[in-house]
Amino acid sequence: MRIGVVGYGYWGPNIVRNFHSLDNTEVALVADRNPKCEARLKKNFSSIGFTANESDVLTSPNIDVVAVVTPVWTHYDLAKKALENGKHVFVEKPFTCSVAQAEELIELADRKNLKIMVDHTFLFTGAVRKIKELVDNKELGDLYYYDSLRVNLGLFQHDVNVIWDLAPHDLSIMDYLIADKPEAVVATGEKHLNGVEDVAFITVYFPKRVIAHVNVNWLSPVKVRTTLIGGEKKMLVWNDLEADEKIRIYDKGVSMSTNPANLHQLLVSYRSGDMWAPQVEQVEALRAETSYFVKCIEENKTPFNDGMAGLRVVRILEAANRSIRTRGEAVSL
Amino acid sequence: MRIGVVGYGYWGPNIVRNFHSLDNTEVALVADRNPKCEARLKKNFSSIGFTANESDVLTSPNIDVVAVVTPVWTHYDLAKKALENGKHVFVEKPFTCSVAQAEELIELADRKNLKIMVDHTFLFTGAVRKIKELVDNKELGDLYYYDSLRVNLGLFQHDVNVIWDLAPHDLSIMDYLIADKPEAVVATGEKHLNGVEDVAFITVYFPKRVIAHVNVNWLSPVKVRTTLIGGEKKMLVWNDLEADEKIRIYDKGVSMSTNPANLHQLLVSYRSGDMWAPQVEQVEALRAETSYFVKCIEENKTPFNDGMAGLRVVRILEAANRSIRTRGEAVSL
Amino acid sequence: MRIGVVGYGYWGPNIVRNFHSLDNTEVALVADRNPKCEARLKKNFSSIGFTANESDVLTSPNIDVVAVVTPVWTHYDLAKKALENGKHVFVEKPFTCSVAQAEELIELADRKNLKIMVDHTFLFTGAVRKIKELVDNKELGDLYYYDSLRVNLGLFQHDVNVIWDLAPHDLSIMDYLIADKPEAVVATGEKHLNGVEDVAFITVYFPKRVIAHVNVNWLSPVKVRTTLIGGEKKMLVWNDLEADEKIRIYDKGVSMSTNPANLHQLLVSYRSGDMWAPQVEQVEALRAETSYFVKCIEENKTPFNDGMAGLRVVRILEAANRSIRTRGEAVSL
Amino acid sequence: MRIGVVGYGYWGPNIVRNFHSLDNTEVALVADRNPKCEARLKKNFSSIGFTANESDVLTSPNIDVVAVVTPVWTHYDLAKKALENGKHVFVEKPFTCSVAQAEELIELADRKNLKIMVDHTFLFTGAVRKIKELVDNKELGDLYYYDSLRVNLGLFQHDVNVIWDLAPHDLSIMDYLIADKPEAVVATGEKHLNGVEDVAFITVYFPKRVIAHVNVNWLSPVKVRTTLIGGEKKMLVWNDLEADEKIRIYDKGVSMSTNPANLHQLLVSYRSGDMWAPQVEQVEALRAETSYFVKCIEENKTPFNDGMAGLRVVRILEAANRSIRTRGEAVSL
Repeated sequence: MRIGVVGYGYWGPNIVRNFHSLDNTEVALVADRNPKCEARLKKNFSSIGFTANESDVLTSPNIDVVAVVTPVWTHYDLAKKALENGKHVFVEKPFTCSVAQAEELIELADRKNLKIMVDHTFLFTGAVRKIKELVDNKELGDLYYYDSLRVNLGLFQHDVNVIWDLAPHDLSIMDYLIADKPEAVVATGEKHLNGVEDVAFITVYFPKRVIAHVNVNWLSPVKVRTTLIGGEKKMLVWNDLEADEKIRIYDKGVSMSTNPANLHQLLVSYRSGDMWAPQVEQVEALRAETSYFVKCIEENKTPFNDGMAGLRVVRILEAANRSIRTRGEAVSL
Repeated sequence: MRIGVVGYGYWGPNIVRNFHSLDNTEVALVADRNPKCEARLKKNFSSIGFTANESDVLTSPNIDVVAVVTPVWTHYDLAKKALENGKHVFVEKPFTCSVAQAEELIELADRKNLKIMVDHTFLFTGAVRKIKELVDNKELGDLYYYDSLRVNLGLFQHDVNVIWDLAPHDLSIMDYLIADKPEAVVATGEKHLNGVEDVAFITVYFPKRVIAHVNVNWLSPVKVRTTLIGGEKKMLVWNDLEADEKIRIYDKGVSMSTNPANLHQLLVSYRSGDMWAPQVEQVEALRAETSYFVKCIEENKTPFNDGMAGLRVVRILEAANRSIRTRGEAVSL
Repeated sequence: MRIGVVGYGYWGPNIVRNFHSLDNTEVALVADRNPKCEARLKKNFSSIGFTANESDVLTSPNIDVVAVVTPVWTHYDLAKKALENGKHVFVEKPFTCSVAQAEELIELADRKNLKIMVDHTFLFTGAVRKIKELVDNKELGDLYYYDSLRVNLGLFQHDVNVIWDLAPHDLSIMDYLIADKPEAVVATGEKHLNGVEDVAFITVYFPKRVIAHVNVNWLSPVKVRTTLIGGEKKMLVWNDLEADEKIRIYDKGVSMSTNPANLHQLLVSYRSGDMWAPQVEQVEALRAETSYFVKCIEENKTPFNDGMAGLRVVRILEAANRSIRTRGEAVSL
Repeated sequence: MRIGVVGYGYWGPNIVRNFHSLDNTEVALVADRNPKCEARLKKNFSSIGFTANESDVLTSPNIDVVAVVTPVWTHYDLAKKALENGKHVFVEKPFTCSVAQAEELIELADRKNLKIMVDHTFLFTGAVRKIKELVDNKELGDLYYYDSLRVNLGLFQHDVNVIWDLAPHDLSIMDYLIADKPEAVVATGEKHLNGVEDVAFITVYFPKRVIAHVNVNWLSPVKVRTTLIGGEKKMLVWNDLEADEKIRIYDKGVSMSTNPANLHQLLVSYRSGDMWAPQVEQVEALRAETSYFVKCIEENKTPFNDGMAGLRVVRILEAANRSIRTRGEAVSL
């Protein structure tokens, strides 16, 4: 299978390295309008071709799969042209700028029997896979909440706000963990510098009293990547910046009972037990993801992080942007 | 000065100990309807009187000041009766259940020339005093945001939700640090157990793009008390659970300039420098607060944490409750 | 049972409070040469008698047990007089200034059928009890090492060096956990200020390749209380400054095998698994210890932290002092 | 300048990458007896030659500098042959297996006017450079102690014990920071698995009451890289595993005075102030080091981490091995 890559900025080299190192796969051509990229590419991968013209990648008859690793506002055009030329597409997150764009790409791929994968890399980390396993095995019991703090200093984007930059990680993870469809989004935030929100807080309401919250911030002096997940039986803390013990599971909980002396009164009782940090598989997530995409194409299977998954994330992002403009009015999904 | 205390539950003993140990002050009488409290009181303070009838405290001619250390739904009645009987009142936070109650108590105290202090204890900690000093001295520059994470397992309240339980701390600190009046409140959250919200997220909009956010949660497996404060020049992290170095100030920032080559393009540049943890005064906050209240009464001065300060916090709490019922509709203040 | 306490400085009030609050026990008399202690005592325990003359405690016919809570150089004289007057004695750690003194007190107590308990408080903490349980149940497998870091700024002692001040904690814990008798002690260190060692490093050799190491330091800018315990099957980290999760057990290990291709070559293989933090009982250690002493006296049983345990710790301290004077010459035990 | 590299195992690729990326420098040939290394090399550096025979590197007339990146027991022979063939040598730490070997290589290089650099990489990190600056500027005042904890699980070596594996880092840093020559070494430790010490504790005595201690351990469940450095005026903690704030400087200290009331009594007083974490330069240490070596050769200057520096470290290692065999007998230097 021959891969073409459009975009060789910050993330592109990782995409190239991973697709190139898989068995039976090679990166044939990389496109970037920045001419400095050629030397960077050649230094590490002298055999891979380079072009300043992305059309060369999108239309080449020798290319089977196109990876779109460019700013979000270019995804739709690039992916569309690649699909029209019969290529499978691997697209950076967030999938597109709008629900309408995403729907159109999905429809086009379906029609041409091509695969779309949206690069929700976190879903392939050992940590998220372990959390998925714990949730699916009902180890946490029914979920109560998902609450993520994802803050750091910069990197400011010019074209998108901090929600579109940082929240897709959490939104794709929620989408992966929580079976029910979200009901509504509330977003608040503020713009302090270049006209886009740099601090934002998003609440997503799910059925059955499950609530999710994401705190994203480009103006934090410290980098934090911590998620609390509370369940009926157990609760966990995922600190992605820990080298080891990324996930800590607490055998703690709260339960309700009726006061025998007063049937109208509910009593809350606490349970506190051991903490447990399961070993998490140490793999490069992107390697697992690219390998999985190749396998899906070969076996004609739909990846779980397909265009539909990308669309579900874009739907929440779009709703969050609408909500934040009205200072938190709930937007139904 | 003779103090009477109503309520000898969790916090009452601290109030008694502090008022009792001040010079020229003594606690004369403690009231609690729970008869077990008498033995607990006598074990440590054999000379202080006890009564199961709070009216004894509220009406005693030998008492100058009444401290109300009971659940919030009782504050209004107890404080009102104390004021009517000519006593100064020291009231637990939150001040009252409603803006109307708070306004009535303030008006009553004014009319009778009595003092009200609301127990916003955190304002008297070394950490908050140091932050106040940094903000007032413009060391942080203009404020961008105040973002607090205040979560733990329990302690569930039956009569109030997690906002009324945990957020008053942050709301009183914001009120202390930010000169401008808040404009609007957005609150989201969910009830999982006993019919009151146990997870909640509050955004407060201030003028000049200052935004505050408070994350409160009774269902967290870990206890966190961390606040990020971002300013134009510097940013700080206050971790109240650290034994030393509660406050860390980062000489980090972001600034904007115009691209000389393209006057329509804003460039964001980052500045990263040293971190500095100033030594913070180690005092018992409640001792400083009770001592200050006695001094305010003696010198006929209005404490900064007076009924008006209590009212400002209750106004936001009331708005948050209204907003949370509508899933985040902004409530103007 | 009536208790007399000699010494009401830093630790004395805790001893008084605990013995006084037990059922069937009361503190009858406290002695301290510092006249300011009387007011401090009376404020909290108005019913307990006070004297500036310790002989009143040591000889009173109304006292059954004497707690010696004074500097180490006074322990021998006070405990001896108490035993001669027929009292059981509870002595602060370290037991005595020398092996000879300890042996004499043990012999005297045996002759008069009296109990001695040495206040090795740490043995009664939830953390050490849990570690003891893990070691005794062979969960760690054979022990490899015990390595403790116990450093902070001050509190300088005038009469003893940092080894006698801080190491007794670890030496008593080792004595409790490791069944075999230590073979030899090596100590190094330095004096920087007042003529006693303020930085010291102690190695204790045990049979079967078990080695212990204690790093004590009065000149550290940070307080650390961390112990690593390595075993054949598992390893643990005990951080006594953590509020929760004081003990973390790592399912990690190393094992040896012979290279099938080269029988002379040993291969080392690593095993890495989950981490587990068992819940640790949250009790006041001193309460458990004082209660246990009363029980030992009532039931005429020998406490495990008896004079012999105190002697074993003093023997290592004495050897460490001898070794440090010769820059680390091993002293056999 | 043309570089040849002998050894392409764990560290070799870093040496190749750094020497190869410098201006005016290229790696011409890499030797390794393991044939798998060729593919690994070619994948990243297709233009660099490979040989299974190290003599090709040591004798090639086209090579100016040989980097010896092999196990320590091979250093002497390889470096000797390189020097005899007129090459400058860059040698992994520890320099050699013995003082005699080191002295011979130094003498040979001197005679042939060639440079030796020993790869004490840590001396080129931003953290150690900052500490050096603080020490040289007398910000810490006179040094009291250097105390390092350097422990982790594995990586067991077959030919050297944990001291020779891990302690060279600290010994080279001490040598860099402390001007005075060490006086004596005491080492204790134990062998649990493959016949070499896997746990060891080293004390180094310096003049003027400066004492250093290094705790190295291959059997620790957690990785720790923390060094405390205490001075008369200030103290610091260097935690090399922190992403930011690797160095924390505490404005804390202890001072002595004479009791005015009793001139024989020394009073110790404590000073506690702010903590400060200076920004540390973020460079790849090995890049700075290789670049510095090239510059030293070009300008015919002696690097500070020359053969003499390597020898001083080997001298302590040799003494530590002698001391550990006698359970801590001090070995004079």
